[in-house]
Amino acid sequence: MTKLIECIPNFSTSDTELIKGLVEISKSIPGVTLLDYSADDSHNRAVFTLVGDENGIKTVAVKLAVFAKDNIDLTKHTGEHPRMGAVDVMPFVPVKNATMEQCIEISKEVGEMIFKEAGIPVFFYESSATAPNRQNLATIRKGQFEGMAEKMKKPEWKPDFGDNAPHPTAGVVAVGARPPLVAFNVNLNTDNLTIANNIAKIVRGSSGGFKHCKGIGVMLEDRKIAQVSMNMVNYEGTPLYRVFETIKMEAKRYGVSIIGSEIIGLAPAKALVDCAEYYLQIEDFDYDKQILENHLL
Amino acid sequence: MTKLIECIPNFSTSDTELIKGLVEISKSIPGVTLLDYSADDSHNRAVFTLVGDENGIKTVAVKLAVFAKDNIDLTKHTGEHPRMGAVDVMPFVPVKNATMEQCIEISKEVGEMIFKEAGIPVFFYESSATAPNRQNLATIRKGQFEGMAEKMKKPEWKPDFGDNAPHPTAGVVAVGARPPLVAFNVNLNTDNLTIANNIAKIVRGSSGGFKHCKGIGVMLEDRKIAQVSMNMVNYEGTPLYRVFETIKMEAKRYGVSIIGSEIIGLAPAKALVDCAEYYLQIEDFDYDKQILENHLL
Repeated sequence: MTKLIECIPNFSTSDTELIKGLVEISKSIPGVTLLDYSADDSHNRAVFTLVGDENGIKTVAVKLAVFAKDNIDLTKHTGEHPRMGAVDVMPFVPVKNATMEQCIEISKEVGEMIFKEAGIPVFFYESSATAPNRQNLATIRKGQFEGMAEKMKKPEWKPDFGDNAPHPTAGVVAVGARPPLVAFNVNLNTDNLTIANNIAKIVRGSSGGFKHCKGIGVMLEDRKIAQVSMNMVNYEGTPLYRVFETIKMEAKRYGVSIIGSEIIGLAPAKALVDCAEYYLQIEDFDYDKQILENHLL
Repeated sequence: MTKLIECIPNFSTSDTELIKGLVEISKSIPGVTLLDYSADDSHNRAVFTLVGDENGIKTVAVKLAVFAKDNIDLTKHTGEHPRMGAVDVMPFVPVKNATMEQCIEISKEVGEMIFKEAGIPVFFYESSATAPNRQNLATIRKGQFEGMAEKMKKPEWKPDFGDNAPHPTAGVVAVGARPPLVAFNVNLNTDNLTIANNIAKIVRGSSGGFKHCKGIGVMLEDRKIAQVSMNMVNYEGTPLYRVFETIKMEAKRYGVSIIGSEIIGLAPAKALVDCAEYYLQIEDFDYDKQILENHLL
């Protein structure tokens, strides 16, 4: 059975010509499919979603990193999104017939090749981290591209591959394996951002909430509503419905209710089927055996 | 893109040797996968779930019908489940890259071949029906094997292929295209079967309820609870959550609540993802684009 691995590289550009180049590379490797890509000018960032077999995904990941190093100059980069590299982060996710251990292995091989072929220093993060303070991307990225030279002089910030200094124009990259992530936002019928922030603090793991939930409050200016914006970084450990019901419960304190939610980008079917199982009170459901499509993949 | 079509033939046997023969045929056709099969002695019936490309599924369907005709003798058949043929019913369901119209076409070709190769008269049913009174399987099957010779003398019960009389030992078969069906049962915290029957009457289309829901009350003797047992014959037209919430609402009249539910056999992921969309209040969800697995099939 062919292993299928997802790779979601983030690039620090929204230039249409460069994106065209990245798309061409993405489509040039046998065994690799480009599922989705999007870019945002205010963030000055592009996110690609690729899926492929083990060899294909390794090959395309390294080629994309080399292209980013050759074409993106961080010394001239501005944008709202925090970033530390031309290819900023490169996660590998098990999709089918692949384990987290295999994705860790792949991330380590790709990290080594990126340093060898592009000269970009590599930090392993998430499940591939070589130290506890390297698990969280935000911790590695703190100081961003501009602060990286100083930060990397400290022994605890020696990269996993490469020298104690960032690439002069391409910075550094975080490479690692992680479970599939679901971007899940919940909209409140209030324009009070403080309420969304308070609720985000309650549900996210870092401040005492659900371990596998990251979240902040954001204001949707066009709709004049506050939103709890979340990354569900492990939807089996922290299911979407549990966070949704907790938000509903906490919002009551303010007389606020949920007016809707959104899933951004792709989500594995199981993240949502698990929610249906809860709400419909389905007994003894076997996802692998009872979902028709699982027999067709 | 390869069309994938599901076929779920029901055979009037639970004999292990015959089932072995049916399994062997199911596994012998390139392009066809046997997803599941189960047999029940008290019903004296076996249900097979196969999926395959257009040519494969047509070939296997006809071969299975010929085997059933050669090996199952309805004149000696007893069992709780109503039946009219050795192969009793043979639905075709669009699974991927296939339309209902294509499945109707396939069902008509298979029906013709079954009569030619096995000599079994064929009624087209569901979306393939050639008259309104032939849509519902139960209407065609009324009178069962024993009453079929008399019934088929009436002009309105002339089969779509074959003579005005059943095959002497293999009876007749209903062949047709239909949407995927989900077997969905809801358990009540009561041992009063009348309550389950009353609620089934409310939710099923035939007595004024939801158009694409069939249902009866049944008693789960081992658990001493009553159940609303349903076939959701078109989960897009009548979603599971809507029926579930209606059952909950109607059960309140009796001070009864839902203690659980079950999905029997296979269900398409969308039938459950649609429910998660409702309960999580997800706005603007695009199932085809946003479910990761849809890009892998």
